[in-house]
Amino acid sequence: MQDYEDGMRACFDASKIWMQVPAPKRGEIVRQIGEALRNKLQHLGRLVSLEMGKILPEGIGEVQEIVDMCDYAVGLSRQLNGSIIPSERPNHMMMEMWNPLGVVGVITAFNFPCAVLGWNACIALVCGNCVVWKGAPTTPLITVAMTEVVAGVLEKNNLPGAIFTSFCGGAEIGQAIARDTRIPLVSFTGSSKVGLMVQQTVSERFGKCLLELSGNNAIIVMDDADIQLAVRSILFAAVGTAGQRCTTCRRLLLHETVYQTVLDQLVGVYKQVKIGDPLEKGTLLGPLHTTVSKENFVKGIQAIKSQGGKILAGGSVIESEGNFVQPTIVEISSDAPVVKEELFGPVLYVMKFQTLKEAIEINNSVPQGLSSSIFTRKPEIIFKWIGPHGSDCGIVNVNIPTNGAEIGGAFGGEKATGGGREAGSDSWKQYMRRSTCTINYGSELPLAQGINFG
Amino acid sequence: MQDYEDGMRACFDASKIWMQVPAPKRGEIVRQIGEALRNKLQHLGRLVSLEMGKILPEGIGEVQEIVDMCDYAVGLSRQLNGSIIPSERPNHMMMEMWNPLGVVGVITAFNFPCAVLGWNACIALVCGNCVVWKGAPTTPLITVAMTEVVAGVLEKNNLPGAIFTSFCGGAEIGQAIARDTRIPLVSFTGSSKVGLMVQQTVSERFGKCLLELSGNNAIIVMDDADIQLAVRSILFAAVGTAGQRCTTCRRLLLHETVYQTVLDQLVGVYKQVKIGDPLEKGTLLGPLHTTVSKENFVKGIQAIKSQGGKILAGGSVIESEGNFVQPTIVEISSDAPVVKEELFGPVLYVMKFQTLKEAIEINNSVPQGLSSSIFTRKPEIIFKWIGPHGSDCGIVNVNIPTNGAEIGGAFGGEKATGGGREAGSDSWKQYMRRSTCTINYGSELPLAQGINFG
Amino acid sequence: MQDYEDGMRACFDASKIWMQVPAPKRGEIVRQIGEALRNKLQHLGRLVSLEMGKILPEGIGEVQEIVDMCDYAVGLSRQLNGSIIPSERPNHMMMEMWNPLGVVGVITAFNFPCAVLGWNACIALVCGNCVVWKGAPTTPLITVAMTEVVAGVLEKNNLPGAIFTSFCGGAEIGQAIARDTRIPLVSFTGSSKVGLMVQQTVSERFGKCLLELSGNNAIIVMDDADIQLAVRSILFAAVGTAGQRCTTCRRLLLHETVYQTVLDQLVGVYKQVKIGDPLEKGTLLGPLHTTVSKENFVKGIQAIKSQGGKILAGGSVIESEGNFVQPTIVEISSDAPVVKEELFGPVLYVMKFQTLKEAIEINNSVPQGLSSSIFTRKPEIIFKWIGPHGSDCGIVNVNIPTNGAEIGGAFGGEKATGGGREAGSDSWKQYMRRSTCTINYGSELPLAQGINFG
Amino acid sequence: MQDYEDGMRACFDASKIWMQVPAPKRGEIVRQIGEALRNKLQHLGRLVSLEMGKILPEGIGEVQEIVDMCDYAVGLSRQLNGSIIPSERPNHMMMEMWNPLGVVGVITAFNFPCAVLGWNACIALVCGNCVVWKGAPTTPLITVAMTEVVAGVLEKNNLPGAIFTSFCGGAEIGQAIARDTRIPLVSFTGSSKVGLMVQQTVSERFGKCLLELSGNNAIIVMDDADIQLAVRSILFAAVGTAGQRCTTCRRLLLHETVYQTVLDQLVGVYKQVKIGDPLEKGTLLGPLHTTVSKENFVKGIQAIKSQGGKILAGGSVIESEGNFVQPTIVEISSDAPVVKEELFGPVLYVMKFQTLKEAIEINNSVPQGLSSSIFTRKPEIIFKWIGPHGSDCGIVNVNIPTNGAEIGGAFGGEKATGGGREAGSDSWKQYMRRSTCTINYGSELPLAQGINFG
Repeated sequence: MQDYEDGMRACFDASKIWMQVPAPKRGEIVRQIGEALRNKLQHLGRLVSLEMGKILPEGIGEVQEIVDMCDYAVGLSRQLNGSIIPSERPNHMMMEMWNPLGVVGVITAFNFPCAVLGWNACIALVCGNCVVWKGAPTTPLITVAMTEVVAGVLEKNNLPGAIFTSFCGGAEIGQAIARDTRIPLVSFTGSSKVGLMVQQTVSERFGKCLLELSGNNAIIVMDDADIQLAVRSILFAAVGTAGQRCTTCRRLLLHETVYQTVLDQLVGVYKQVKIGDPLEKGTLLGPLHTTVSKENFVKGIQAIKSQGGKILAGGSVIESEGNFVQPTIVEISSDAPVVKEELFGPVLYVMKFQTLKEAIEINNSVPQGLSSSIFTRKPEIIFKWIGPHGSDCGIVNVNIPTNGAEIGGAFGGEKATGGGREAGSDSWKQYMRRSTCTINYGSELPLAQGINFG
Repeated sequence: MQDYEDGMRACFDASKIWMQVPAPKRGEIVRQIGEALRNKLQHLGRLVSLEMGKILPEGIGEVQEIVDMCDYAVGLSRQLNGSIIPSERPNHMMMEMWNPLGVVGVITAFNFPCAVLGWNACIALVCGNCVVWKGAPTTPLITVAMTEVVAGVLEKNNLPGAIFTSFCGGAEIGQAIARDTRIPLVSFTGSSKVGLMVQQTVSERFGKCLLELSGNNAIIVMDDADIQLAVRSILFAAVGTAGQRCTTCRRLLLHETVYQTVLDQLVGVYKQVKIGDPLEKGTLLGPLHTTVSKENFVKGIQAIKSQGGKILAGGSVIESEGNFVQPTIVEISSDAPVVKEELFGPVLYVMKFQTLKEAIEINNSVPQGLSSSIFTRKPEIIFKWIGPHGSDCGIVNVNIPTNGAEIGGAFGGEKATGGGREAGSDSWKQYMRRSTCTINYGSELPLAQGINFG
Repeated sequence: MQDYEDGMRACFDASKIWMQVPAPKRGEIVRQIGEALRNKLQHLGRLVSLEMGKILPEGIGEVQEIVDMCDYAVGLSRQLNGSIIPSERPNHMMMEMWNPLGVVGVITAFNFPCAVLGWNACIALVCGNCVVWKGAPTTPLITVAMTEVVAGVLEKNNLPGAIFTSFCGGAEIGQAIARDTRIPLVSFTGSSKVGLMVQQTVSERFGKCLLELSGNNAIIVMDDADIQLAVRSILFAAVGTAGQRCTTCRRLLLHETVYQTVLDQLVGVYKQVKIGDPLEKGTLLGPLHTTVSKENFVKGIQAIKSQGGKILAGGSVIESEGNFVQPTIVEISSDAPVVKEELFGPVLYVMKFQTLKEAIEINNSVPQGLSSSIFTRKPEIIFKWIGPHGSDCGIVNVNIPTNGAEIGGAFGGEKATGGGREAGSDSWKQYMRRSTCTINYGSELPLAQGINFG
Repeated sequence: MQDYEDGMRACFDASKIWMQVPAPKRGEIVRQIGEALRNKLQHLGRLVSLEMGKILPEGIGEVQEIVDMCDYAVGLSRQLNGSIIPSERPNHMMMEMWNPLGVVGVITAFNFPCAVLGWNACIALVCGNCVVWKGAPTTPLITVAMTEVVAGVLEKNNLPGAIFTSFCGGAEIGQAIARDTRIPLVSFTGSSKVGLMVQQTVSERFGKCLLELSGNNAIIVMDDADIQLAVRSILFAAVGTAGQRCTTCRRLLLHETVYQTVLDQLVGVYKQVKIGDPLEKGTLLGPLHTTVSKENFVKGIQAIKSQGGKILAGGSVIESEGNFVQPTIVEISSDAPVVKEELFGPVLYVMKFQTLKEAIEINNSVPQGLSSSIFTRKPEIIFKWIGPHGSDCGIVNVNIPTNGAEIGGAFGGEKATGGGREAGSDSWKQYMRRSTCTINYGSELPLAQGINFG
């Protein structure tokens, strides 16, 4: 922990310098980071695949996402706009200013060993904050590789490397970050359970949290859906990244009239999924990340069975050297306790419904609120789905999978998903502190609400 | 607590209806509430003075603030805008939608027995939420009066009265609100200590909080300040509302060159403050709100003395029927423990400094971060003060007092003040849930980041 | 014209005072104007009907629209926000400020003798501008009535009545406004022909125009449309206000598969339209505004016939005391010259099409670009219609008529409609001047783009 | 002109393709253009210097500005946001959509032979428009060089080169663009006189203009100003680019108390300005652009003398091979006719004033309204200067020169400067067409303003 203290102190000191650099100049640094990453796209993508286990196109896609974020953040560096608000008092100027926070702590998970860092760091940096990053203990190589790229750019620009400080450690580093009063904002990505602990610890010292926690995401297929589009989407959403995305589709709600058709096609498609080396061309399903992940899968399948679930496809681990498991489809009641939890693997729960109202109720009946999707072509359903009585999630899709977000929109979810928003829209505001400033440049003292005092 | 359950259930049911009413129609209801309050401005203002103890102009000003908020919220009801964000995928429409939360819990304090409700309720209502309000146990009359006004408007429009539900109870109602999973957002105004408890309770069920907690607000007087303007401002900021505003000035930082001048003038002015019946014309200082408040004042003065504080003016309770105390000026070191706490009464700590840097460090050295003000005419100081190395508060003023905010700006503070923002700017976003919606209206399935899957 | 000069001079002088009043205080004046109008809603609505000829519900609706605008503008008065933009130079503050223009000229037409004034004046006033209004020469009573209401409020608030100055004259007043260099912005509503003259005159003195000119608005009915909804909408859009709205539907494009069905229903409905006294309950069609309007109708019908148009319903004037004409349906080719022009009366041109592409091409083939509407339930059509290759109009509707806009959205059109936008969204920016301000509060002189000079 | 027709037709055809490309993908193309320019920064900067005559640091700065614009536009490509506006009608969705215009015409001037193109083209392209560019007839090399860079990027991405089409011709090309109905927006940079002709021509066909016309920019030096900072700024503002910037300082208003001091220092500094080869290190003043420019200088000096101007420094052409003239300071009355005009060379008019009010009146007394600057340290002056009664220009600076704008702020001016805004803020809106869309997804037909029809 001396390492932590040394690193953190350097980072804190660097924050005094970094927040003085004008935002567009900070943007220029982030642009150079983007260029450096773009130049190593293939290399870093392979490293992600190797270390995390996701297939190569997804590994490269993850690095591409940081590159996109850098480009986006460069533009943002000239648009971190405050406001000038009309004052009711003569000779007064009212403004909303945005200033850097200082140091932002970023704790990421194994499943996106670098993209989630990218969302946070690109924005945190242009906003004028230094970053303290704790990557997952099981993906140290990518943590080191990313850190080197950023350090190289900082060095070339004669800026302290401590502006971007990273640690590869485990829970004790996470706890240190959560407790550290020098870190006004902690961005945490992980399970709802750990996220809540982080939140409580950070709250106790009146710090702020940005939480991206568990998802339990449903796809609803209506009777008028384009079935082919739906099946392709479900496959990507449920099997992609071996079901280890926070936006993985875990629940499939099928209208009774299309129930059997969709299910038959899906089971057929599942059988053709190529499982194997994630670096090999054509592979769709790589191994789970660790032995523990595999054990959780096994325990999950047992629980499913004991709660009345019926395995329609897959359901077993694959005997081999890696942590391979079969992509699995389970028919189960929406009331079964397992359905309320996030089983981090390629397991899809299928349920039947009769009306839109019922489907939305099931969609909203879990503690988590990250992503959701409906397949339909009817405007009255689409607009109901995205309206006040529709999905209660942070991501509400139509005719696309639950996963695969673009960086321009805000990413995150409600309820046990933690309420944070990263990447696009006005997410940058979370990385800054807001102040309402009123300047009296006259010589009188008029009071708001027309109050007369003294 | 059966009352709570009955009221809450009715409110929850009403929320299904209210969120269906189009926002501009909700605005029309809030407009009518504003009109009803405007018609009773004097009457309600007197009631606030009588029950809370603040002087009449402040009592009326408090009701005027709700009227202003209603007018503001009416305009807002046509501007709760979502966004349409360019999608990187052809035939895709990406949108950020804002939907109502359902029910918003509002817990307010005795010192602003109705204005703080006004901030929350006006915005919560146009945003499509029902409101459950717990007023302070010591201001039941104003709670009842406000509720009747709103109920009258709802009834006239054939809307369920439960859209606005209020309780006069104590801590047990507050706890019930904090625990209630039907209330996605709890807005709490009060002490940092209780606020933290509310926050932890609400977090445990993954609800959201909007906290307006303790302040410990400083005014800095630079050597070039307009002394007369400063003295008048300090008086209003330190003595107004008998020092029982969250934005009350509690710390006065004087540049050494003006230290004695300002202090002399201030002590002179303090002696002329008319203390007495808050309804009487000319009174500047009414009684403290309760006997407990008076006891806290006495205990505070003892602590001050024991920690080396020197009483320059006041320092005693006034023997009379009410809870009257003298407006008090104390010379004390910025390191004294009492200076870090919020003593809810008309007690002002005075300190000396030599440089701007030192003054800002003292300003930022307390746990709270609500309001702050500097008196100067130098642009380089003004812009430093509102910049990254300036005040760390949510309200950062120049040449005006720490208190007396306009409704157009966001109101709230950082650190132990809780981080919430009410009233103006984009505060309304806290009263809604955000969803990022992507609609695929084509027949292809392009993936973000150009990923190819299957 | 001495009257003009006197009025204008007073208005110009008043502008020095009015622009000093803080925006929220200006909002309070506009709120009072709204209240005064609300109190006279029925009375003023009747006056509009009497003088202009529109049916009573529309007369009242027109006054209601100003009341809505007042409410909206009150909220806006605290949200005329400028921006603080991150500067690339240290110790520099970059801001975008919005200041009043001074005097805004508003020239309105007979068909909305007060609502269009309301759009312009409510926003112009909160933005800090005085208003010079020229109402239509044929609606002097409503001009006088409106002026009195506003004057009453100004007087009650001890403000110069010249803040709102009106004239009842004809073209010579319009020309004087167009030429007057004391009027930086002229908002003109009327025909494309006159609008162009105004634009050229105002441009010559480098003033700005806000133009709301002719419309030639189409409704498209797709093969999957809700026919009943479409027919009701067409009736309101084509016959409402006797076809004298700028958003009146003048062209009906029917998909070949529903052509006959829609046409049959429409002809049936047209026969039942109650024509007569606009103040009488149940009347849907009042008289045209003037004898000239009636003559133009007659000339229009002649031109239609000579260009191959086939009258399917109506087509004649009604012999009576007023300027009554029959609601008329004409089958005609989209290439006929009359179809490219705006015939200001209840004449609807019907055309057949086969594909969406063809329908959009016809929609976009006229010089005007105000409003347009499609009836369909297919998302792929809806989003294409509102996208880059869809309607080229300023108002693009789905499953509602071409007319009947809400005040929250920007109102106006492209091409020969003039390009101006009134009412909602960021229309207020047109009523202010923008300045980009950069304040150097340091003592160095860094240059943008890193240039080194000297 | 067959060339024009061929090029324009190809461009118009390409616009159908380009507007279909999703905005973030268009951003990626602009990013690549930025990279290509960055790689040739020195080379292109030298070319600008050689062909236009400005000194090398300014030549490079000009190219850097386009690179900055590209970076900025990339970020913007994910933020060209429309709005979702609350509708007053149930089951209605109201939106403001932004769609491309098609083809944007850009006519630029010799003094910024490529930066002004960069402002327009970067934004026009990400907004989905093709660009038709007419560079200055006297800077064909840079026109060709820029075109090749862009063409290279388009080709590499398999996009039609005609997306960016350029012409080197003279007035006849400009007129063709102004008249061409396929070009909905013409952005023109040049003199007020020609700009007005363009405006009138484009208006006649109901097209839109974005005008950046003449400036006549003043610097005001108050009695409390930092004289050294002021003098350095005046030098850069008046002599930089040989006085051939639209933002060049042409008028210097000195408070009587500092009049002589500033003037003495300025005359001293002017004598040391190194005149000569713009590519040579240390040169501050290169030649005027053409012989005609030199002749205009001579005529200008004659007019100055005949109107009572007194030459304090310079005033002559320099006998040599190039079009070199002396940097010139003239003492003259603010009423002299020459002072109202833009003399495009390094000639500075100096005037004396006594009060701020007088200085602002002089500042605002010319037909043009581009840039302006004040030197002072008093907040009451600063905020008055940027407020409703301050400078009437589009650029309003404090303690910096009139020239040297950052790309993040909107660039442009009022009055005879034409009113257009390029580069930052919401300038992108000028390059798109706005539509207010209302979608009824229900089955009822409620009307706005609560109107009942039929």
